[in-house]
Amino acid sequence: MRYSKIPNETVRRLPVYLRGLALMSRQGLSSVSSSKLADFVSVNPWQIRKDFSYFGDFGTRGVGYNIENLARQIKKILKLDTTRKTALVGVGNLGSAIMAYTGFGTYGFQITAAFDNDPAKIGRKMNDVAIESISMLDTLGKRQVDMAIIAVPEQAAQDVANALVRAGIKGILNFSPRRIVVPKKIKVITIDIATDLARLPYYIP
Amino acid sequence: MRYSKIPNETVRRLPVYLRGLALMSRQGLSSVSSSKLADFVSVNPWQIRKDFSYFGDFGTRGVGYNIENLARQIKKILKLDTTRKTALVGVGNLGSAIMAYTGFGTYGFQITAAFDNDPAKIGRKMNDVAIESISMLDTLGKRQVDMAIIAVPEQAAQDVANALVRAGIKGILNFSPRRIVVPKKIKVITIDIATDLARLPYYIP
Repeated sequence: MRYSKIPNETVRRLPVYLRGLALMSRQGLSSVSSSKLADFVSVNPWQIRKDFSYFGDFGTRGVGYNIENLARQIKKILKLDTTRKTALVGVGNLGSAIMAYTGFGTYGFQITAAFDNDPAKIGRKMNDVAIESISMLDTLGKRQVDMAIIAVPEQAAQDVANALVRAGIKGILNFSPRRIVVPKKIKVITIDIATDLARLPYYIP
Repeated sequence: MRYSKIPNETVRRLPVYLRGLALMSRQGLSSVSSSKLADFVSVNPWQIRKDFSYFGDFGTRGVGYNIENLARQIKKILKLDTTRKTALVGVGNLGSAIMAYTGFGTYGFQITAAFDNDPAKIGRKMNDVAIESISMLDTLGKRQVDMAIIAVPEQAAQDVANALVRAGIKGILNFSPRRIVVPKKIKVITIDIATDLARLPYYIP
C-alpha cells in the first residue's frame, strides 16, 4: 500500500517518532500516550495525532499506542520493513564517521559498499566493507543497492551524483553543501548541519 | 523583539529558507516568489506563506520577496544577526568533519574552541583553533561561548553535557545517538543522520 498523499513534513517526522519509539522500547515500555511521545520527541501532541491521522487510527482511547505495533506500522509506511543496502561515497572524516555510526540499524539500513578516490584507502576494510575505487560506482546497479550517501568534497559532489544516477541509484542523501542536480525521479535529501545549528540561538535567552 | 509564539516547526524551516536565499543570492538573484522559493527548498508554497505570516508580511504582491531583505529579517528572527561563538567537543572523525565544514558562515557561526580527551590531539591546531583538554570545558563561560556541539562517543555524551551545563552553555547541538538529559532551560537539538536517511525509501518506487 502506498500513501501518496502524506505531506513531506509528516514523512520527515515519522522517522523521529520511530526513533523515539525504539528508545522507549529499549527502556522497557510497551505503550505510550501521544502526549508522552510528543514530549519525548519534542513535537506538539496535536501534530503527532494529525500525522498519524493520515494512516487511520493507531491508538486506543485511554490506553495510547502500543509501541511495538506503532513502530511496525511506521516502518511499513516508510518502506523500512526490509533491509536496505546503501552505498557510501567518500571515506574522509565525515564518511568514516558515517561508517562508524551505529544508529542505522533502527531503520534497517546496511552500508554494503564504500567508495573513495584515494589510492591509499582503496582496498582497506572498514566495518567489514572493502573500500572500492570510485570508478566502480557503475557496478552498484547490479548489486541491489538503490540508495547512496554522498560525503565527498563540495567540488566533486555533482560528478559523483551523475555517476550514481547512471548506476541506477534512486535515492541520495547528500552531505555536500553544494546543491546537486539530478533527474526529477531521483530523490535527493540534503543534510546541512549548519541549518540545525542555526535553530539554536532562537531558543537561547 | 522576541517572537515567542513561533511553532518549533517554523523555526526549523527558517534556516532552510535562509540557506536557499543565500544560494539564490550567490546566483545573482535579487527577488523571488514564494512558489519559486518553495520549489528551491522543497517546501509547499502555502507552508512558506504560513511560516512568514507569523512575522507580518515580507513580500510585495506580484513582485515577491526581496532576497536580501528577507534574509536579513529571518536572521533577526533567529537571532543570527551577530557572530555566534561555538565550541566543539570531540575532534574525532565527525568532529574533524565539522571543523572543516564551510557552511557555518551563512549563519554567522564561528567555532572558536575545540576539546578532546586524546593527549595526542591536545595542543594541535585545526582551522586556527588549538585543541584543548576536555578538562578545560569549565572555562567556556568566561569566553563568550554559549553554544556547543557534542561529537563524542555515545558513552561520553552525558558527562560532556553535564560539564557544558556547569560551564554555562545555553544551547547544545548533539550528534551522539544517546539522548542527553539537561535542565529544561538548556536547549538541546539532537541530530541523527539515520532519521534523514530513513525518509529516502518512502520516495523510492
